[in-house]
Amino acid sequence: MNSYGNRFRISMFGESHGELIGAVMDGVPAGIPLCAEDFVADLSRRKSGGKGTTPRIESDMPHIVSGVFDGYTTGAPLAVVFRNGNTISKDYSQFRAIPRPGHADFTADVKFRSFNDIRGGGHFSGRLTLILVAAGTVAKKIASDVSFNASIKQIGGSDNPAEWDGIISDAMEEGDSVGGIIECVCNGVPAGLGEPFFNSLESEIAHLAFSIPGVRGIEFGDGFSSAAMKGSQHNDCFTNAAGDTATNGAGGINGGISNGNPVVFRIAVKPTSSISKIQHTFNFESGEMEDFSVKGRHDACIALRCPVIVEAIAAIALAQHIR
Amino acid sequence: MNSYGNRFRISMFGESHGELIGAVMDGVPAGIPLCAEDFVADLSRRKSGGKGTTPRIESDMPHIVSGVFDGYTTGAPLAVVFRNGNTISKDYSQFRAIPRPGHADFTADVKFRSFNDIRGGGHFSGRLTLILVAAGTVAKKIASDVSFNASIKQIGGSDNPAEWDGIISDAMEEGDSVGGIIECVCNGVPAGLGEPFFNSLESEIAHLAFSIPGVRGIEFGDGFSSAAMKGSQHNDCFTNAAGDTATNGAGGINGGISNGNPVVFRIAVKPTSSISKIQHTFNFESGEMEDFSVKGRHDACIALRCPVIVEAIAAIALAQHIR
Amino acid sequence: MNSYGNRFRISMFGESHGELIGAVMDGVPAGIPLCAEDFVADLSRRKSGGKGTTPRIESDMPHIVSGVFDGYTTGAPLAVVFRNGNTISKDYSQFRAIPRPGHADFTADVKFRSFNDIRGGGHFSGRLTLILVAAGTVAKKIASDVSFNASIKQIGGSDNPAEWDGIISDAMEEGDSVGGIIECVCNGVPAGLGEPFFNSLESEIAHLAFSIPGVRGIEFGDGFSSAAMKGSQHNDCFTNAAGDTATNGAGGINGGISNGNPVVFRIAVKPTSSISKIQHTFNFESGEMEDFSVKGRHDACIALRCPVIVEAIAAIALAQHIR
Amino acid sequence: MNSYGNRFRISMFGESHGELIGAVMDGVPAGIPLCAEDFVADLSRRKSGGKGTTPRIESDMPHIVSGVFDGYTTGAPLAVVFRNGNTISKDYSQFRAIPRPGHADFTADVKFRSFNDIRGGGHFSGRLTLILVAAGTVAKKIASDVSFNASIKQIGGSDNPAEWDGIISDAMEEGDSVGGIIECVCNGVPAGLGEPFFNSLESEIAHLAFSIPGVRGIEFGDGFSSAAMKGSQHNDCFTNAAGDTATNGAGGINGGISNGNPVVFRIAVKPTSSISKIQHTFNFESGEMEDFSVKGRHDACIALRCPVIVEAIAAIALAQHIR
Repeated sequence: MNSYGNRFRISMFGESHGELIGAVMDGVPAGIPLCAEDFVADLSRRKSGGKGTTPRIESDMPHIVSGVFDGYTTGAPLAVVFRNGNTISKDYSQFRAIPRPGHADFTADVKFRSFNDIRGGGHFSGRLTLILVAAGTVAKKIASDVSFNASIKQIGGSDNPAEWDGIISDAMEEGDSVGGIIECVCNGVPAGLGEPFFNSLESEIAHLAFSIPGVRGIEFGDGFSSAAMKGSQHNDCFTNAAGDTATNGAGGINGGISNGNPVVFRIAVKPTSSISKIQHTFNFESGEMEDFSVKGRHDACIALRCPVIVEAIAAIALAQHIR
Repeated sequence: MNSYGNRFRISMFGESHGELIGAVMDGVPAGIPLCAEDFVADLSRRKSGGKGTTPRIESDMPHIVSGVFDGYTTGAPLAVVFRNGNTISKDYSQFRAIPRPGHADFTADVKFRSFNDIRGGGHFSGRLTLILVAAGTVAKKIASDVSFNASIKQIGGSDNPAEWDGIISDAMEEGDSVGGIIECVCNGVPAGLGEPFFNSLESEIAHLAFSIPGVRGIEFGDGFSSAAMKGSQHNDCFTNAAGDTATNGAGGINGGISNGNPVVFRIAVKPTSSISKIQHTFNFESGEMEDFSVKGRHDACIALRCPVIVEAIAAIALAQHIR
Repeated sequence: MNSYGNRFRISMFGESHGELIGAVMDGVPAGIPLCAEDFVADLSRRKSGGKGTTPRIESDMPHIVSGVFDGYTTGAPLAVVFRNGNTISKDYSQFRAIPRPGHADFTADVKFRSFNDIRGGGHFSGRLTLILVAAGTVAKKIASDVSFNASIKQIGGSDNPAEWDGIISDAMEEGDSVGGIIECVCNGVPAGLGEPFFNSLESEIAHLAFSIPGVRGIEFGDGFSSAAMKGSQHNDCFTNAAGDTATNGAGGINGGISNGNPVVFRIAVKPTSSISKIQHTFNFESGEMEDFSVKGRHDACIALRCPVIVEAIAAIALAQHIR
Repeated sequence: MNSYGNRFRISMFGESHGELIGAVMDGVPAGIPLCAEDFVADLSRRKSGGKGTTPRIESDMPHIVSGVFDGYTTGAPLAVVFRNGNTISKDYSQFRAIPRPGHADFTADVKFRSFNDIRGGGHFSGRLTLILVAAGTVAKKIASDVSFNASIKQIGGSDNPAEWDGIISDAMEEGDSVGGIIECVCNGVPAGLGEPFFNSLESEIAHLAFSIPGVRGIEFGDGFSSAAMKGSQHNDCFTNAAGDTATNGAGGINGGISNGNPVVFRIAVKPTSSISKIQHTFNFESGEMEDFSVKGRHDACIALRCPVIVEAIAAIALAQHIR
C-alpha cells in the first residue's frame, strides 16, 4: 500500500510523466494556518541540490485542492498536488528490454506484469520525493515544537566539505555518480513518544527512511559504531531531573520511546543509479549481455537533495505521536 | 500499538515477571502442519547464546492455545503463550528512583505515568523476543520456499571469531558488556515482493528490526559503505533472463521490491545495557548524582542471542507478501 | 480517517465548493482495462435521480490522473478527480448561526472548532458520493464475476412504484422531502469471502453503507423481520453439493462468510434534510429559537440517487476479499 | 483479520472447545483501576439470559495475564483469557457431512478448506462473545462518562414483555427458537466523536454489531421507519446552545459525528440456528437430502443474552474516539 500512518496518514499517487502527482494527508488537525507559500522553503531546498543535481526545471509549485479554508486547515483530508511538465517520454521506451541497473525497472516489470508506467521511472521516480517533502512541511507544523535539522556529513567517502565539489566534478566527468551520508538532528522532541516493540520511534523513522529511493542504511545515535563499544561507553547516564543525559549514544530513544534528548540518526544514500558510464548488463529482448549507457542529464549525487527529505520523514514519524 | 502486519499480523502481550507472555498471530493460512515441537529449534538457538548469556533458566516451551486442530493450522487466530517462571521481582524496586542507563525505565515511566510494570523491565524486557522468535517460526512456514540464515559477523569490534571468546570474557571480568553485528541472508525470495515507497521490503524489515531491543542500525546490501562508492561500483548488472545480478550491492531489493537475488542485511546490536560496572547517574528521588551498579546476572553480549531473532523478523516481513 | 480498506483502499478528499474532489485507490491490480468512459454509466445513474433530484448541473466527468498507462491499470495508486463548478458559495454563510437540522453543520463546527469549510456542506456534502460511485466502478472491475443490482423498494412509505411520482410531487409542493428503501442483490459472489467476527462480510458492507450520507439502517436477508421468525422459518437448508439453499434468509452470509448464494441487503435512506418548509430551531448567535427555511433547490428524495451508490459500496466491500 | 480498532484495538482468539479463549487489548490508557472482579457484572448478565438460555455451565471467570500491575492498567497490552471447560466434543463430528442450517459450518469448511476446528462451532462459536463482553468492560472504563443501556424491545415478534415467557416456552416445546430486537441507548456521549464518511460513528458501531453472531440488521434513531417519514418529521431541530434537539430521529449522530444527544440504535437478532425440530437439508457425504435435527441443549432465544454484548460493542466503538 502507498500510504503511511495511523494518526497522520499520507496516501501518495502519481507518476513522473503523468499529469499530476500528489498526496492526500489525513489526520491533520483543524486550525493550522497553511497556504501554498508555506511549502516553498522546503521544496526549494530539495530542488537546489547544487552541483551534481539535474538541471531539469521542475514545476514544483504545490496546489492545495482540499482541506484548507480561509487560510486554515479544516480537519478534512488535505490534498496537495503538483503538475508535471517538461518531460520527454520517448527516452524511456527501451527500459523493458534493458532494465537499468540499480533501478526498479526489472522489479516493477515483474511485480506489475509489464503494466507499470515506465516513463521516467513512473511511480518509482525520485520526483515523488516532492510529495514526501510537502507532507513534511505539514508534519513540521503539527510537530511545531520540534526543530528538524538534516545536513550532509559525507560525500563520496569524504567527511571534508571542502573536497565535495571536486569529488562530484570528477564523478560527472567520468559519467559516474557518488553517494553520501545525511545526519538528522531533531531538537525539542518531548519525552514519551513511541511505543515498545513494533511501533518504536526508530521503527517508524526507519520505515519511512527506506521509502526514500536510494537509502541503503539507517542508524540511530552511536549506530553501527555502538557494536564496537562497551556498555559503559555506550550507555547514557542521566544528569538531572529533566532526563538530560551526559552522552546521547541512544540517539534520544530508549525502549522505542523518546527520552527528551535530541533524536539523532544518519542515513546512507547510494550513488545515483543513472550513469552514462558504460555498464555491461543483460538485454532481456535479445537475450545477450551488452554495453549500456543511461542517456540524459541526471543528478551525479542524489544525496545532495536528501537533507530536506530526511527532515520530512522525521517530521512525518513524529506527527504520528505528537498532538 | 503492539501489533504488526496486514496479512500476517502479530499482536504481542506480556511482561517479564507476569504469568504469561504470548502472541496472537492472525492471517495464518489454514492447513500448515504445526505443533509445539516445531518451535523448539529456533527457541533453543535464542536461549543458548553461549558464553556471555545469562544462566537464568527460562521456561521456554511454547503452548499453542488456539488456531491449531488435529495438527494443522485452522485459519483462525493462532495464539501461542509461554509461562514465565524463575523470576525474582524484588530486584527491580529501585528502578523508579534510578532509571538504568540504556534501559526504558525512564521513558516508560514518563510515557505511562509510573503505572508501567517495572519488574524485570516489564513489557520492555528482552524476554519478549521469545515471542518474535515464535512468530518467526510460523512465518518461516508461511514463507516456506525461503531459507533464512543469520549469523554473527562482529563482536566487540572484531571480525575474527577466534577472538570473540576472549573479548566477552574480558568484558565480563570488568563487569562490562560488548555489542555485535549480525548479518542475515535470505535465499529463495521470489522477485516481485514489496511495494514502492511506504511499504518497501526494506521498510518492513527495518520496521521490525528496530522492534528488537538493542538494535542501533540496519543496512541492506552494500549499506553504509555504498555511500562511499561510485554508481558504477554499486549498481548490480543483470546477467541472465532470470534476473540474476553480477553483484548484490542492493541486497536483493530494487525500488522497494525484491529482485530475486538474496535479500541481505546487517544489523548493529548495542552492548548490553545492564552492567555491574559503576555508572555515575542521576537519582530522581534524592535529586543527586550517584554511583550505580546493575545487580544480578546478565548477558554480557545480547548480540549472541540475536541471529535467530533477526531471522524471525525477516520471515515476518516476507510473510506479509508471500502466499 | 477518510480511508477504507486493507486490500482495495480508498482515500477520499474534497469539498463541495472546492476546486477538486477525488479519491486515491490503492491495491488495484495491474492490467485492468480502464478509461474515463468506464465511469460514465454509473455516474449517470447517480446524476439522473429523476423527479425530485436537484437540477444543479454537476461537472461529473472523471479525470484519471495516475495509475493508468496505455489504457490499463498499472498497479500504482489510481487517482481519480472531479472538477467542481456551478457553485454559489454565498448561500451558506448563515449556517454557523443556524445549523441546519439533519445536517452536519453543528457537529462539524464542534469537531473542527469552526475551521470546517461550511460552503455547500464542505467535506460532508452529498456531492462526495460521486467518489464512492467512481470507486465502485473500479471495484466492480476487480469483482468482475459478481453482478450488483440495487433498486428502490419503497419511497415515502409506499411499496408501489406507481405511487412514487405523486408522493414526491406532493412533498415538493409542501417544501418537504421523503425517504426510501433500497435493496441490493449481488449475484455470483463465490463462497468463502469474509472473516469470522470483526471483518464479517456484513461488517464491511455495513461499515461502508453508513458512509453514505442519510443512511439510517441496514439489514441482510430477512433482516429485522427475522426477529419475529422461528428458527425453522429463518434457517436456510442446503439443497445440493454446490451449497445452494432453499431460502435465503441469511442474505448469502453465514458466520460472516459468503455461502455462494446471492448477497442481499437493504438500506433505509432518510428524507432529504434540506427542506424549504419552516422549521423552528435554535439560532446559536442570537440565542433564540426562530423559524428557519433552507433556501435553494434540493433533491426532494435523495434515495432516488442511492441505488448506484449502494452498489458501489457493495463492490468496494467485496473487492477487499476477491482476487 | 480478527482484530478491530485503531486506538483501542482488540485481537481475539480461541475456539469453543479449545483450552483458552481470550483477547489482547491494545491502546488501553495507563492508570485505569482494573481487576478480575470488574468483569463479573457484565459477564453475569451475558450468562444469565434466563429462560431459553442453555444450562451449560461456563467457566466464565476472566484471567488477566498482562497489562495490569498493582491494580492499575499499565499501558502495555492487556490480555484477558478464559478457560474453557465442560465441553463434549464428540457431538460435533457429523457437521462436515451435514452443515447445520444457519451456522457457519459450510462457509468455514469452504473458506478454511476443511481445516477449521468444527468442535462446538470452533472459532465461530457464540462463546466468543464472552470476549466482546470482556472488551466492553474495559471500553466502558475508557469511555467512563458514557452510560450504556441496552434492553430487549421485542421477542418473537411481540413488543409486550408479559408475553415473552410464553413465546419462548412454546418455541422450546416445538424444538424451535425465536429472535428478538435489542435497543441500546448511550447517554453522555460528548458531541464531536466520529469521522465524516468512512469512519462515521454509525459505521464503527455497525461494523462491530455485525461481529455479533446472529445479528441481521441495525438501525439508528428513527431507523427504517425514517424512510416513510417526511423531512419535517425526521429532522431534529436544535433547542438550545448545548445542542440539545427536540427530537432524536438521528439517534444522536449527524454526518457521522455525535451531536451530544443520546446515541440510540437497535439491532435485530435472528432466532437461534440450532434447533431440534426436523430440518430437511443436504448431506454432503451421501449426496442426498435428509431429515436433520440438532442434538443437545441450546438457547431457544440468543437475543436474551445480547443486551450486554450490544453495550459492549457500543463501548468499544466509542473507545476509539474518547480520550
